[in-house]
Amino acid sequence: MDYRRTHHCNALRKSHIGETVTLSGWVHRRRDHGGLIFIDLRDRYGLTQLIFDPEISKESHDEASKLRSEWVMTAQGIVRPRGEGLINPKLATGEIEIEVQAFEVLSKAKTPPFSICDDSTETNEETRLKYRYLDIRRGDITEKLVMRHKAMLVTRQFFDSQDFIEVSTPILARSTPEGARDYLVPSRIYPGNFYALPQSPQLFKQLLMLGGLDRYFQIAPCFRDEDLRSDRQPEFTQIDIEMSFGYPEDIQKLIHGYFQVLFKTCLDFDIPDTFPTMSYDDCLEHYGTDRPDLRFKMPLVRIDAIAKRSDFTVFKEQLQQGGCVKALCVKGGAEISRKEIDRYTQFVGKLGLNGLGWMKRQEEGLSSSIVKFFSPELQKELEDKLEVETGDLLLFAAAKESIVNQALDHLRRLIARERKLIDPKALEFLWVTDFPLFEWDAEEGRPQSVHHPFTTPHPDDIPLFESDLLKMRSHAYDIIINGYEVGGGSQRIHDFEIQKKVFAALKLDPQEVKTKFGFFTDALQYGTPPHLGIALGFDRLVMILTQTENIRDVIAFPKTQKASDLMMQSPSSVSPKQLKELEIQAEPKEITWI
Amino acid sequence: MDYRRTHHCNALRKSHIGETVTLSGWVHRRRDHGGLIFIDLRDRYGLTQLIFDPEISKESHDEASKLRSEWVMTAQGIVRPRGEGLINPKLATGEIEIEVQAFEVLSKAKTPPFSICDDSTETNEETRLKYRYLDIRRGDITEKLVMRHKAMLVTRQFFDSQDFIEVSTPILARSTPEGARDYLVPSRIYPGNFYALPQSPQLFKQLLMLGGLDRYFQIAPCFRDEDLRSDRQPEFTQIDIEMSFGYPEDIQKLIHGYFQVLFKTCLDFDIPDTFPTMSYDDCLEHYGTDRPDLRFKMPLVRIDAIAKRSDFTVFKEQLQQGGCVKALCVKGGAEISRKEIDRYTQFVGKLGLNGLGWMKRQEEGLSSSIVKFFSPELQKELEDKLEVETGDLLLFAAAKESIVNQALDHLRRLIARERKLIDPKALEFLWVTDFPLFEWDAEEGRPQSVHHPFTTPHPDDIPLFESDLLKMRSHAYDIIINGYEVGGGSQRIHDFEIQKKVFAALKLDPQEVKTKFGFFTDALQYGTPPHLGIALGFDRLVMILTQTENIRDVIAFPKTQKASDLMMQSPSSVSPKQLKELEIQAEPKEITWI
Repeated sequence: MDYRRTHHCNALRKSHIGETVTLSGWVHRRRDHGGLIFIDLRDRYGLTQLIFDPEISKESHDEASKLRSEWVMTAQGIVRPRGEGLINPKLATGEIEIEVQAFEVLSKAKTPPFSICDDSTETNEETRLKYRYLDIRRGDITEKLVMRHKAMLVTRQFFDSQDFIEVSTPILARSTPEGARDYLVPSRIYPGNFYALPQSPQLFKQLLMLGGLDRYFQIAPCFRDEDLRSDRQPEFTQIDIEMSFGYPEDIQKLIHGYFQVLFKTCLDFDIPDTFPTMSYDDCLEHYGTDRPDLRFKMPLVRIDAIAKRSDFTVFKEQLQQGGCVKALCVKGGAEISRKEIDRYTQFVGKLGLNGLGWMKRQEEGLSSSIVKFFSPELQKELEDKLEVETGDLLLFAAAKESIVNQALDHLRRLIARERKLIDPKALEFLWVTDFPLFEWDAEEGRPQSVHHPFTTPHPDDIPLFESDLLKMRSHAYDIIINGYEVGGGSQRIHDFEIQKKVFAALKLDPQEVKTKFGFFTDALQYGTPPHLGIALGFDRLVMILTQTENIRDVIAFPKTQKASDLMMQSPSSVSPKQLKELEIQAEPKEITWI
Repeated sequence: MDYRRTHHCNALRKSHIGETVTLSGWVHRRRDHGGLIFIDLRDRYGLTQLIFDPEISKESHDEASKLRSEWVMTAQGIVRPRGEGLINPKLATGEIEIEVQAFEVLSKAKTPPFSICDDSTETNEETRLKYRYLDIRRGDITEKLVMRHKAMLVTRQFFDSQDFIEVSTPILARSTPEGARDYLVPSRIYPGNFYALPQSPQLFKQLLMLGGLDRYFQIAPCFRDEDLRSDRQPEFTQIDIEMSFGYPEDIQKLIHGYFQVLFKTCLDFDIPDTFPTMSYDDCLEHYGTDRPDLRFKMPLVRIDAIAKRSDFTVFKEQLQQGGCVKALCVKGGAEISRKEIDRYTQFVGKLGLNGLGWMKRQEEGLSSSIVKFFSPELQKELEDKLEVETGDLLLFAAAKESIVNQALDHLRRLIARERKLIDPKALEFLWVTDFPLFEWDAEEGRPQSVHHPFTTPHPDDIPLFESDLLKMRSHAYDIIINGYEVGGGSQRIHDFEIQKKVFAALKLDPQEVKTKFGFFTDALQYGTPPHLGIALGFDRLVMILTQTENIRDVIAFPKTQKASDLMMQSPSSVSPKQLKELEIQAEPKEITWI
């Protein structure tokens, strides 16, 4: 039988009734009912019901009784209406069925380790990853891969429309030990030497600007050999963008235009006409983090001035030691029990904060064991500052500012999740700007670049090179969506003299600079245009588009947190011949697979 | 000065005269002429002439005299018509110039190691690769990268329009020592174990079909650690395609449709409505190769039957030893000198062919030292068979068939090149089918797969599994353009029983099969749809689109034949700490860079 389809399994409607069709796919479900056999035939697009009637063909009916789940088959038959009361409104093809005239089994299937047709049963992720091809068959992953494909295409069409050229940069690149840990690739021709897989195409894209390419983008595979957090993968994808002769506002406009098209095409969602901008300092002040989630309110409010005038020694001592006091107002939170508040206290305790003050606003005013330390005037000031209404809960943190920020940021998000303050369909965008250029690396005893050493200092802060490095701001910017840092970029240094000052500030050994970046600092001296760019985390964008928190849902063949592929059983040992050719020695440790 | 452009350097025309504009770019050339200074300002898009007139601004004119080649600048001025007789018809902006009012140097440049504005001077490729960013600036490479970008986008749009989904497959994959040599990546978490960079996403794409994805494509980075031929790169790009429920003719139709769109969009070239198909055997018979260049005629013609009846013992002996005799007819080749023919003889000598017979067709008939061994009747037969006309040259090869084929294939192409028989704009497509499934591996003493072990045998040849493996044909197909194998693919095995027979025929140790492909043969047993696909060499396609023979011209940052990056100086030694973390030992050999 010719197994080519006339239609896929989500195509047939009432208008096709009477047509002879061929469908091919997987047996999703078989039911024997009233002497008839029903098969739900499945493919990527949907389901169509096949019916085998012994009165039409005894032989076909007998053969159909042997069909089992996940067998692959092709069937020819006539489209007919479903009987009265048998219409399935949940199915696009629910008004019709195929009266099968002939069919053929294309391949049989063993019983899968988990059910394909019933994805309500929880299957542990390791099993799903081991049998990824079956997991993909369940449809949920396929939907996300289709969205990923769509997003990739829209991305490319958008940047092409803006005169950007996609250029593939090398994957066999050079190790630059600044930054995260590199994956290395031994060279056979130059034994003992190594390539490195790129952590990002940063230098390549800057070189393309030096080459006059003007506007570059790439959906680029990137690699980091890090101990993985659950939302990271050793290989990940970024939308890498660089342009010449622009300013940060131009990149921001470009990305806004991109997001307009992306979210409209993929989700039919209209994003706002502009995104708000907040400085790094303001973010930390009001949200305790440089990537605030703006889908809900509940900012951190500094009450140093009030606390200082109170009689609450716990707060006052922290202030005296250079700390701060910040508060959150949980709307309607007066209903939260003491036990719950104790749980919050434990939660922030793990983040280094010793204790949490609280007050509830009842009809008659603020109440709690610490209210007495605040005069009625101070209570009034507190209520005004935090815009407190009856029924609200106030939570206080007093400690070193970095600890207060971290604890209240996490607490704020925990409460929002638990109290369902977040509209799951909401999308809140934010530009964060004016990052510090350097931060102090206590371990190394020298300043480090907050972004990377090619980031331009804020033009107003150039004089601070000589006086106060850590006060210098950079021309860097991050784009935040729903509290996730979706991308970051900067104006790059195009003036070799400034580049030298940055290297000097980082106290990098000139010989080291020469070895690591020599070719690049050379390149900067042959006529460098002002240039700037951004890199967007594509996996994260797709996670937002598909509303999943699991990065493995948006990658066809993901790796575990131990960077292993359970399906392929990779990494693996290799033959002694392979190692000999590379002139490296290694003792393979055995890996136990599930 | 705000360096943002109102126009790029190829935008301004007569219609803009009188407008105030801002341009930014590189100083391509400076000329001082009649008291005026002229600057050709360059960007990716083109050139525009700036003019500095001391009568308009003495200061600007003085400053402009300091400008040097490759400095980056921004200039504001008024568009004005060029003077009578000063119009440059070769330049799109040749009718106008910019009367500069203000300008600023954005960055200075050292003297480049080769001229950017004069690319007629030959620069050795090593220097060009070391300063790749300057080489890109010369425009030639940029044009090819723009074409590459365009071809990528068209490719993606086409396959999307046909319901194909682009899926990225892992780059940290598993080593499968069949095939070429893998690049390995040491695992840190599982010391002594390795990932391998994929030689192609073959298994992944088949698994996606098992997963029901139905139609997949990817513009995929692939890697091979081979000693490089000049037209190969260690990392290369293929357009990888796989679909379910189709037959080879469906793939062929798909690829034809793709090429229609690709060549129309990129070159405005209309390809033929169908491509010819030739069997593998016919290719070898008539062209001596499985990738014949059909841009010119001059087929190989077998004259065994004539040679056998001649008195020429050289030919007859070869026939008796199981060899063959084939001839080429070089149109108008009677003018070729004895000396030239001697050069041909030397050329084929290097390919293992001991000598070349020849005859010239003069007005009065065939002539040469060997004509006498052929009776007038046989001469007539020869002339008829080879369609000889007055003024032609016949060349004869007699030896083992594989040697005759190889020698005459190369000779045929050499003569075509030298005698300019090839229209540089021609595009000749050909499908080659009916490849053998197996070939004999004398070294290993067992059959090998001609394509790979997942290729379906020709359905008619299944019985030969038991009798004559080497006679079995496969359901594989190659697409040839202008004598280049641009792509190849096959129907895959979806029947596990046939897959087992193939592994048995290859005499693979079952334990080895289990280790290497165990997860895959397992997967085949869970309901595999019939599926098939193809992979197209994208770099080669872009080389055809941009009419270059140098693969490095179509890759932004290519590697040398020793797989090194002269710009980045990669591979490189890495720190002892990095090796220690990976638990591998290696002695770095020093590399000398240019």
